Formats: sequence, structure tokens, C-alpha cells
Amino acid sequence: MIVVMKRGATREEIEHMIQRVEELGLKSQPIYGTERTVIAAIGEKRDEYRHSLESGPGVSEVVSILAPYKVASREVKPESTVVRVGSLAVGNSHIGMIAGPCSVESEEQTMATARAVKAAGATALRGGAFKPRTSPYSFQGLKEDGLKILAAARQETGLAVVTEVIAAADVPLVAKYADVLQIGARNMQNYRLLDAAGEEGKPVLLKRGPSATMDELLLAAEYILNAGNPNVMLCERGIRTFETHTRFSLTLASVPYLHERSHLPVVVDPSHGTGHASLVPRMAAAAIAAGAAGLIRSRSEMLTEL
Amino acid sequence: MIVVMKRGATREEIEHMIQRVEELGLKSQPIYGTERTVIAAIGEKRDEYRHSLESGPGVSEVVSILAPYKVASREVKPESTVVRVGSLAVGNSHIGMIAGPCSVESEEQTMATARAVKAAGATALRGGAFKPRTSPYSFQGLKEDGLKILAAARQETGLAVVTEVIAAADVPLVAKYADVLQIGARNMQNYRLLDAAGEEGKPVLLKRGPSATMDELLLAAEYILNAGNPNVMLCERGIRTFETHTRFSLTLASVPYLHERSHLPVVVDPSHGTGHASLVPRMAAAAIAAGAAGLIRSRSEMLTEL
Amino acid sequence: MIVVMKRGATREEIEHMIQRVEELGLKSQPIYGTERTVIAAIGEKRDEYRHSLESGPGVSEVVSILAPYKVASREVKPESTVVRVGSLAVGNSHIGMIAGPCSVESEEQTMATARAVKAAGATALRGGAFKPRTSPYSFQGLKEDGLKILAAARQETGLAVVTEVIAAADVPLVAKYADVLQIGARNMQNYRLLDAAGEEGKPVLLKRGPSATMDELLLAAEYILNAGNPNVMLCERGIRTFETHTRFSLTLASVPYLHERSHLPVVVDPSHGTGHASLVPRMAAAAIAAGAAGLIRSRSEMLTEL
Amino acid sequence: MIVVMKRGATREEIEHMIQRVEELGLKSQPIYGTERTVIAAIGEKRDEYRHSLESGPGVSEVVSILAPYKVASREVKPESTVVRVGSLAVGNSHIGMIAGPCSVESEEQTMATARAVKAAGATALRGGAFKPRTSPYSFQGLKEDGLKILAAARQETGLAVVTEVIAAADVPLVAKYADVLQIGARNMQNYRLLDAAGEEGKPVLLKRGPSATMDELLLAAEYILNAGNPNVMLCERGIRTFETHTRFSLTLASVPYLHERSHLPVVVDPSHGTGHASLVPRMAAAAIAAGAAGLIRSRSEMLTEL
Repeated sequence: MIVVMKRGATREEIEHMIQRVEELGLKSQPIYGTERTVIAAIGEKRDEYRHSLESGPGVSEVVSILAPYKVASREVKPESTVVRVGSLAVGNSHIGMIAGPCSVESEEQTMATARAVKAAGATALRGGAFKPRTSPYSFQGLKEDGLKILAAARQETGLAVVTEVIAAADVPLVAKYADVLQIGARNMQNYRLLDAAGEEGKPVLLKRGPSATMDELLLAAEYILNAGNPNVMLCERGIRTFETHTRFSLTLASVPYLHERSHLPVVVDPSHGTGHASLVPRMAAAAIAAGAAGLIRSRSEMLTEL
Repeated sequence: MIVVMKRGATREEIEHMIQRVEELGLKSQPIYGTERTVIAAIGEKRDEYRHSLESGPGVSEVVSILAPYKVASREVKPESTVVRVGSLAVGNSHIGMIAGPCSVESEEQTMATARAVKAAGATALRGGAFKPRTSPYSFQGLKEDGLKILAAARQETGLAVVTEVIAAADVPLVAKYADVLQIGARNMQNYRLLDAAGEEGKPVLLKRGPSATMDELLLAAEYILNAGNPNVMLCERGIRTFETHTRFSLTLASVPYLHERSHLPVVVDPSHGTGHASLVPRMAAAAIAAGAAGLIRSRSEMLTEL
Repeated sequence: MIVVMKRGATREEIEHMIQRVEELGLKSQPIYGTERTVIAAIGEKRDEYRHSLESGPGVSEVVSILAPYKVASREVKPESTVVRVGSLAVGNSHIGMIAGPCSVESEEQTMATARAVKAAGATALRGGAFKPRTSPYSFQGLKEDGLKILAAARQETGLAVVTEVIAAADVPLVAKYADVLQIGARNMQNYRLLDAAGEEGKPVLLKRGPSATMDELLLAAEYILNAGNPNVMLCERGIRTFETHTRFSLTLASVPYLHERSHLPVVVDPSHGTGHASLVPRMAAAAIAAGAAGLIRSRSEMLTEL
Repeated sequence: MIVVMKRGATREEIEHMIQRVEELGLKSQPIYGTERTVIAAIGEKRDEYRHSLESGPGVSEVVSILAPYKVASREVKPESTVVRVGSLAVGNSHIGMIAGPCSVESEEQTMATARAVKAAGATALRGGAFKPRTSPYSFQGLKEDGLKILAAARQETGLAVVTEVIAAADVPLVAKYADVLQIGARNMQNYRLLDAAGEEGKPVLLKRGPSATMDELLLAAEYILNAGNPNVMLCERGIRTFETHTRFSLTLASVPYLHERSHLPVVVDPSHGTGHASLVPRMAAAAIAAGAAGLIRSRSEMLTEL
């Protein structure tokens, strides 16, 4: 960390802060600049004590230098992680094609979709049995009945099943049927759920929250990794911005950025990321060109393109 | 809903969409404009079928007319809700002053703070016993021990206790000690938690997610109200924008807007909303001027202003 | 336009608004819904009178149905525009590769760059002679001397010259040397400059402002088109969002969106759009996959990829 | 500046960067951390050479420590600037009330408004004679005829006239009639206009662009100050965010922030900042509570509150 002192900071204030940095077990190195003094605080503690330093007398701001995540970092594990489960492989040169209905509505609909997306080249089937809904008046999913339908579709088609889990308490139930636990954007910082998914051990597809930074996404992954589960796929699905011509803004530079900083594979969801079926084929191609290791597609989008 | 057809939509496409609207149990009324045809879809179903209409042939977009929330709406309940519990009253002309430490660290610290903020005019004590943390390596709170400390502080000072609950499974435990269950910004769309807090019945302080729209905030409140709990306080704590001079952007126009649309009281958190102690006093005053029915303050901020 | 009345709007208020719509020369068609009345206002006036209706008694909001741009619209001109000038062709299946130094610093630097980017496949040379700078203390460009250097580079290499013009008063001077007038993001709504560039007639590369919507971009293009100049290239260069891992957020869905709505070609600037050289190659590929008709590259980026 | 090296940076790369920093005339001070080496670059050059350092071998990023503006800074001029012209005083304890029609449409309308807002307590009259319009098809203002009407209104009421200038070429004409030159949000980075307004010398009201950071706003002011004009008022009028319940998001924390960093007074425009008349009175009060030295109001808003 770099503690930046105010322009008029006194000698006492500077010495006080040097002492405070050292009391935290960090090495201090003051730099007397032309206009200001800054104090480098050297050590392993990362951001733990940042707030306590920020409130010090004469301090203007505290600037972090180190990334706050560790296990997710490519610096710690240089080789790219490949997540494999059944028919699905994601990472390195493996591109996962995860397709299926937004929500599981019936056995007929799900089976027909599973067959169709398999024929169209999908390597995994996704479908929602537990649906997180903005409105309490919307259909919340078929729950265990939906999971059973998905498992039946796997049995027939051989496709790995990706499905969302929305609460820590549901993790054992969902894991009983699913191959990959999807954690949705609304739950990216539901830490109990992250912990539970980490302890369960099945591969996790972790969606970026619509206002999450890269650090926050990687720290959410870190919860799962830290609980002992190395099989995490990150998913870019667009962020909230001022734009209204798309439902979210699909900022694909996160794909090569995450590839630089982390060994975890990145999947892109161009359907949620744009909200308009007509924009999806182009954005799916763009995601792959950006380096995505997988795509999540709705059935209809996948079939239109054939 | 208004179904807007594309400029070149054919007579068949228009008739097809009119039929589809009526199959959904809605009344249709086509409007033949100078450049386009639009079809008004009249009925009570709100947004349930919006997506199915959007994918229709020749459809350009579907525009919603009605607000998606009901019980939270001022149209349904014109008089302002006042939430009262122990020493705290929020709403109408009652201004709640909720103050205390960000996290409960020890009995001494909490007791001292409780006495100080009471003397400074606080009407409730807040403090975190369960802390949602961006990093898995940060302190996660004292949990039940923290709750006991808060209860002891209430016994001595008479201040109502406001504390965060981060998982549905913890609701009974937190409700045993707390007067108000706080649901944090990261959990605004943790629907299981909203349901559990709704069923428990104790007053809830619901914080706006950093990228939540007003409709999403009111629909999250609707989950709690719909589960039978009328005592919901909304909390504005800033949104994620491009600005970096503050941690979040505290857009206070949400206060009078929510006051127009909903009967629920709005509390403002200027500490999280700015992230800089020096900006808090002015923004606290601005929040009250904007019509806020309460403030959440840290101890130090509250005392500096004296 | 759709005038949405408030839930409790009286019969008098509704009749008053119907009369007001008709006084504006529009046809009115009221729709009596289950919860509200809405009034469709039919006619050619587009958004001219929107604000006057919004302030009417009992009005909740006014919703626009039509796009506000005309000449830029694909509805008006279904075939894609191709902009051609010298060595550069952009649009339809023609991909323009515009490369060169951010700013023209000397004849040697510019000549060497021009030769290098030509050898690397560029179809046009870009370089700034007039630089808009955030700080008054930064180098503002070589001005006419810079333009002369660019013209000399064209003479030797045959590459068309793309260079920025930052004020209406400079348009004749810049047009004397340049093949394409670039209008930068900061000037996207500098209407005098748009008019002047429209009247001059040389092809224009119009960059999207960092907080401009699609409608605002197309309306800025409309100023140029409306002044009689059909040769407009739009340029996506990223928007301002909460993200900090890139300088701007490069939301490529604007490319297929603009392709749907407008006949104008879209060029992408992945350098400004990301701000990090290491992310540019992937985002350049993604832009082409998204349907971009051209790229703007810095010299070094273009050469690294060889 | 702090040059942060990559984790695996070699001794050669570190020494190369130390040399490069010193070649730029800056003093270097390397700090060998637990995980990385950072190099402090000490000197007066501010951000001039930042980009050249960023592209160095083994460099991860370059972090700025100093604010890029000087003359606008409170560090340079600790006492608050008060702008005075005719009936208007803004800054320190002086609150300017600038009111009037969005655009000057006729002498009758303007005169009536001027009398009404004066009676309601306004200390200056604003009205647009040159209007920057998103669409080329909208009314662009009465131009010089509008300026004459404003001057006549000043003669009768004694109110100082605030009016927008949209191009450098118009500055002499507008300055002939106006007391304060308003520079609109779209032109905040129109540097020719800033220079021209700086040279002219009349007080300037500079509106924040909808995606401008605080540094960018202060650097735009710096252009005017640097041209020799000390009478600059900053104006907060809301930023572009994902929010749709208001036209812009009025983030009032900019008011106390600017007050800390700069001596220039800050005026707030709650009308453009919210876009809804019903939200304006509360946000006007909030702006004053946040420390604003002035407000810009439309006539109708000002009168409704009486």
C-alpha cells in the first residue's frame, strides 16, 4: 500500500503514520516528493488494515498495489485451469457450448430441447429448476421436479447438466442431480452459497454480478476455491450501464483481462448480456474471438443460426 | 403493455400479434400510426407474458406501462408507513437516527459506542455481528457472541438494535436478539432471505443493491410485504457509477421518487454512499433535506459533528 | 407517443389531455385499461411536443415509440453505405484498417510509421495534428505542420489520411490536407463542428461520446447527413462505466445494433476502448466478429501482432 | 507517480525502468516489496510522461499520486472564490438564485418570466438564446434576437443575465449582451470555447459533462483560469448512470468534494439533474444542504414552491 499524505502534512503527522504502519507489522519507506510525502507500506497483509490507515491524521488517501485475490491468480498458478465434467470441457483450447431453455417447464419441452441442442453441437444442457425472480409474482421454477427432468435428459442425450442453485440449503439437492452448479449474478456475493458450493465440490459456473468489478468477481471465486473446490468457471453476462439499447452492456474486454490475471476459464452469456435475440449471434462470435472458453445459449438462438 | 410493430410489419404479422395478445387473456387495441402500428394489450397480467410477445414476428419492442409492484405502491396505500420498534420510529415526520460501529468487535467497544451515540441523539444502535465480506480472508464477524453484546447494549441504553442478517438460515437466531433485521445491498435479491425475513415479522431495513433500479428495490420489498410483514424500511446507500471520487454515487433523488411511488419510509446511509468521512456531514444534511426518514451513521461521524 | 395517465386521473384530466394532443395536430386514441388510461398520440411530429405533454394535469409519463433520427435510419435507406476515399473502403464487406500514431510528432516518426503500417496491411493512415487534451498543460499538436507531414506521408505511401478536427473554424484547413475528418468523442455533440463537417463534404469518422446513447450518436450523424454529406462512418470507442480494469468499457453490441438500425458503417477503436495494449488484439478480433467494418489501431499494436 | 512492476519482473527490467524515470528528469526511488517492486518517480512533471512509462518492459501499471489541476486547486488558493456580477453573487456564504426559461421564445414570455422570478427571489435571469439540440430538427434558439430580449429584461428588472454560448466564434456576440457565459455539459471539453471564454474575461458558469470525472471538470475550469479569467462557477447537473427513474443521476457528493479540493463555487441544476418537476424542490433543498453556492431553476419550478 501507498499512504499518500496531504500537501500540508506536518512532520509529526508523517512520523505518526510511519509509526502506525510499523505497528501493523509492515515495513515503512517514506518518499519525500516535490509536493507531497508518500509512505510505502511493505508486507503481506494486503488490504486488511487499509481503512485504519485512511483515517490517520494528514492522510489524503491510501492506494493499493497488490491484487486482493490469491488462489484465483495466474501469478500463483500459471497454467490455465480446464474444467471437465461428462460431456463438457471448458478452458485452454476447449470450448464449452452450454445450451437449453431458460427455465425447465415440462419434460416434453426439456427433452425436445436437449435433443435439438445436442444435434446443434451443444456439449452441455442448461435449464433452470430454481429461478431467482425479480418479482414475487413470477413463476419460481419446478424445483426438484425440474431437476429430475434434467437428469432424465442427461440420461438420454449424454449431455452434462448445468443448473442454477439459489440458496446454500439447496446445494445438496441440486448437486444430487446436476453436473455443474450455476451461481447466478444476483448471488455472486451470497457468501454462504459460495462456501456451500465450494464445500460440495462439483464444478461451479459463477456469473458476474451486474455491477461487480473484476476484483470482486475473482474474490467471489476465491471463496469457492478457498473452500477446496478448484473447478470454477467464471461467466461474463454483462454489466449495468446507462445504455438502454441492450438489457446489459456486454463488455468483452473482461475476457482477455481475466485470462491475464487468472487461470480460471471464462464463459460468456450473450443472451443475458444483450437481451435481444437478433444481437446474440454476432456477440457469441465476438466472445469466442475475445478468447471465451465457452458460451451459454438459449435453444432458439442456437437453432436459428444453423 | 404496448406492442410496437416494426415499420414494415405485414397485415398478417399484425393480426397474428393481436390474436396472441388475446390468447393471453388480454384485450387488444391496435393503433395504426403514421409510421408504425402499435397494439395496446389491456389487462391485469402485468409483465408476465412480456417476453413471449417480444419474440413475435414483426415485433420491434414491448413497452411496459404499469409498475410491477403492488403492495409497496402508494397507489394501493396512500398513507405513509411508519415503522416503530422500541426507541426507533421511522416514517412520516419521524426521523430515525441509527448509529453505531460498522462491526461489533468487543463488549467494551460496543458499550462505549452505544452510550456515546445515545448521548449524541441516536434513536437506534446498529452494529454488524454477521459481516458479508468481499474477501474470504477478512474478518466475518463475532456472530452470536456479537448479537449478545448488542442485546446487552440495548438493555443498558434502551436503544433498539439494528443488525444485519446474511442468510435465511440465520433469521431465527438474529431475530432472537435484534429489533430490526438489516438486509444488505449484496443480498437485496437473495429471495430466500427476503422470504424468511418476511415470514419472521420483525421490522426489516432493506438496502438498495448498488446497481438496483427503483423497480427492483420495490419488488424486493414486495417479497417481504407479500410474506406478511408490513414493516419495511428502504435504504439508499449509493449506486455504482463511473465516479471514483466517492466509493458509491449517492443519488438522493431516489428519496423523493420513492416517496411519490411508495408508502414505505426511506433511510439514507451517507457513509457507505460516499466512503469518505469528510463528505458525510453535508450528505447527511442533504439526505434529510431530500426527505429521508432516517440516517445510518458510524459512531465517529456522529460524534465529530457535535 | 403514448401519454400514460396517473392511476387516479379524472375524466376531466383525460379529456383535457385528449384535447391537448389534438391541438398539437396529432390524432388521439384513448385506451381505457384495467388500472390506467393511456392516450396514443398519432402523427409525424415525433418528440417535438413531448415535454409540453409531460407537464399536463394527471399525466404520469410520456413514452416515445418512434426513433428520432431519419436519414441515418436503415428504414429509410435499406442498403448499407460504403464510404470510399483513396485507399480506404469501409462498409458492407469492406474492412478499413486505419492505423498510425496517436499524435504526429515529427516527419521521421510519421513517415516511418506510415511505411510500417502500410506494410502491415493498413488501408489508411491516422495521426493527430490537432489534439484535444484534458489538461491545458499537455501538448496540443503540431497543427498545420502536422497536417503537412500527413499529406507528405500520403504522397509517399498512397494511404488515405484520417485526422481529427476539433473546431468548426479549422474545418477548411484540415480538409485541405485530410481525406477523412475525424470528429472525436468529446466533440460528438459540438453541433457547429458537425454542421461544418457536413457542409465541407469530405468523409467523416464520427466517434461516439463516452456517455452517448445510440440515439444520440445517430442524431449527431444526422446533423452531418442533414447538411448534405452522406459519407459518415460511426466509431465505437467505449463508454464510461463503473469498470476500472479498462479505461473505457468497449460494449461491442453497439456494432450489430447500429447495423440493424442504420445503414452507416461502424468502425471500432479497441485502443481507446480498453486503454491497455495487451487487451487490444483480442478486442480487435472481437470487433470484426461483431461485424465492424473497420478498426483504428496504434502503430505498435498493429506491429506486435505480426 | 508510482510505477508498479509485474510480480516476476527481472532485475534488468527494474533497472531499465529506474533509468527511464531518471531520463525523464524525475528522481527515482525503488521499493522492494514482499511480492513486487514498485518505483516512486518524484518530480514536478505530473502525468506528462505516464503513458511512456506504462509501456515499459515488466511494468504492470502506473499510479498517479498528484491531482492534475493546479490553479483550480484549494491547495494553491485556500480562500473560497466569490463570483460577483450585477445582482448575482455566488460563493462563500453568497447563494445565487439563477432562474428563467429554458429557452427565450419571445419578449413577452421572457419579460413576464423575469418579473416573476425576480419577485420570487431570483438574483439572476437565465434563458437560452443559442440552444444545443440533440436533434437537428429541433428549434435552435432565437440567437441574437434572444440576447437582445435578455438584455432588455435586465434593463427592466436589474437581474444579471446568464446565457449559454455554444461556440468560440459566438463568444464576442454573447459577451456583448450577457453578464455570465454559460458553457453547457456537451461543451465541457470544447477546449476552443473554454479558451475563448477564458480570454473574454466575463464570469463563466461551467457545467459538468454527464460522464466527466471531478478531475476532468476541474481541468476544464483550469483552461479558463489559465487563460486569465478567475471568475469560474462550476455546475453540477447530474451524471449518466444506469438509473432510469430520473433523466440524470444527481450525485450531490460532488458539492462537498469540490469544496474540499477547489476554491471555485459550485452551483447545482436540479431540473436537468432529475428531469422531473416533482423531484426538483426536494433536490434543490438537498443541494443547498450539501453546500451549493447557487441553484439554477426553471420559472415554473420556482413559482410552484411559493
